[in-house]
Amino acid sequence: MKVLVVGANGKIGRQVVNMLEESDTHSVTAFVRKEEQVEELKQKGIEAYLGNLEGPVTDLEEAVKGMDAVVFSAGSGGSTGADKTLLIDLDGAIKVMEAAQNVGVNRFVMVSAFGANNREGWSRDMRPYYVAKHYADKALEQSGLEYTIVRPGGLLDEPAKDKIKVAGNLEISESDEKTVPREDVAKVIVTSLDNEKTYRKAFDLVTGEQSIEEALNQL
Amino acid sequence: MKVLVVGANGKIGRQVVNMLEESDTHSVTAFVRKEEQVEELKQKGIEAYLGNLEGPVTDLEEAVKGMDAVVFSAGSGGSTGADKTLLIDLDGAIKVMEAAQNVGVNRFVMVSAFGANNREGWSRDMRPYYVAKHYADKALEQSGLEYTIVRPGGLLDEPAKDKIKVAGNLEISESDEKTVPREDVAKVIVTSLDNEKTYRKAFDLVTGEQSIEEALNQL
Repeated sequence: MKVLVVGANGKIGRQVVNMLEESDTHSVTAFVRKEEQVEELKQKGIEAYLGNLEGPVTDLEEAVKGMDAVVFSAGSGGSTGADKTLLIDLDGAIKVMEAAQNVGVNRFVMVSAFGANNREGWSRDMRPYYVAKHYADKALEQSGLEYTIVRPGGLLDEPAKDKIKVAGNLEISESDEKTVPREDVAKVIVTSLDNEKTYRKAFDLVTGEQSIEEALNQL
Repeated sequence: MKVLVVGANGKIGRQVVNMLEESDTHSVTAFVRKEEQVEELKQKGIEAYLGNLEGPVTDLEEAVKGMDAVVFSAGSGGSTGADKTLLIDLDGAIKVMEAAQNVGVNRFVMVSAFGANNREGWSRDMRPYYVAKHYADKALEQSGLEYTIVRPGGLLDEPAKDKIKVAGNLEISESDEKTVPREDVAKVIVTSLDNEKTYRKAFDLVTGEQSIEEALNQL
């Protein structure tokens, strides 16, 4: 698959790009915002596209055209101002969906947030961020695209454990893991891309007991 | 019609409440956030409901139950922080829609913003606000509710002119009015409530040449 990774400079996005670049079955284009990021990627031999999620849908169509899939991992992670959350996590995401629809790219993998589907569980501080993720995810579910929505728990900068737990609505007990290494999230995204068991599915993701392949096949 | 006005303490909401209170065909309940607002309304003999748009949908169902219609005029007008824009203009609005659906209240009038349907026209400063209004409006259009979405131009604190111009996508030339008195917006909302020509319609609204009745009947 030819895959466009939007948010390719983010902590998850970078790992997805590297995994796809090393893959035998996929190729990757990294969608980034800054000229210097393009240069850096090109020096590593990675295809890069300079684009802006705040621009019009027609510009985004140019980026998406000719791809087989889009991975959307751009966004604030709740740490930027809520204005950027509205412009990137919500409108930016939906504009990329519209661009994909307009040029006939059907496969779309979204990096969301644990519990974004469940309003009652949103923490007070992060609520504006969850609102944006929630409605972007809903728009994707209603878009007609072949989506996968990955909702990881607390993100860790640790090496992959290669052991995960996934479910449409994960019930977490006190003793359960609520976190997951970013590298495992990236692996789940890459593994999902051509695994039809993950199509039209949205799921929470934390560290667990199953292998990635096994867990995704049970969705 | 028994009408719940959400955002009843706002500049448009207050006028809608007063018009409905004086109407022979409608009755009104004012949904407000603060105890002191409830007291103030009760002293005027106006029914009030103390509620919070940041609360759960089940609480909002209690407010909507038994109504024939909801008017949603709550929101920041773009002047509060973007976090409140996400929580009130987007999530708050959609939670009230969900509450209305859950308890079988079908009529829903939304106060939106001129051009909220047209991304390319959004001014840079107000863009986060337009994003929230845009997706709230889209959710309403997809909700199955009997909606009317009123998108007024620049709001003036002037007496009603009783002359308006409306259209699904209003093309404004240099010489045209781009503004409308809040009192005219309130009149359009009240007149729309039981006018089926406005059902399942979304339209821009500015001062124009037609009477309100005439303009709405041509939608």
